[in-house]
Amino acid sequence: PEWQVMEENGDQKIRRAFAFRKYTLALAFAQQVGMLAEAEGHHPTLLIEWGRVTITWWTHKINGLHRNDFIMAARTDGLYRALPAED
Amino acid sequence: PEWQVMEENGDQKIRRAFAFRKYTLALAFAQQVGMLAEAEGHHPTLLIEWGRVTITWWTHKINGLHRNDFIMAARTDGLYRALPAED
Repeated sequence: PEWQVMEENGDQKIRRAFAFRKYTLALAFAQQVGMLAEAEGHHPTLLIEWGRVTITWWTHKINGLHRNDFIMAARTDGLYRALPAED
Repeated sequence: PEWQVMEENGDQKIRRAFAFRKYTLALAFAQQVGMLAEAEGHHPTLLIEWGRVTITWWTHKINGLHRNDFIMAARTDGLYRALPAED
């Protein structure tokens, strides 16, 4: 339920917002997802705001969702779970 | 001309998109802007996409632009200029 399927500019995408109290941890998480993206050659949008990082996966060349996007979402969750606790 | 004044959700903001050929450099730049933001206690939105990082500054508590936002924009440009050349 945490990843939402949504539509943007006619493309289906999956999006999840991760809440953070520590901005530096939000930055570190975004960096880790970015490194994973680069390693896999598949790049989400990463939106970093105060208190929140929002990740959106989709497959440009099919203008929608591929099985791989769900795998990347699961790997994103794995990176999030591996972060140090905030308090 | 590179920073555009725009309105979003009723707030005036300034926004600039920085183009990158190397995703790792885009990530490093976003990280640097994030560290500056944390050091100054003033947090922009950072949108990282393939080929582009878009930075938006504004002052939440006045729902608009303060002189400090323009200073942060100039400092963002300074970080950009200090990056290694891409080719």
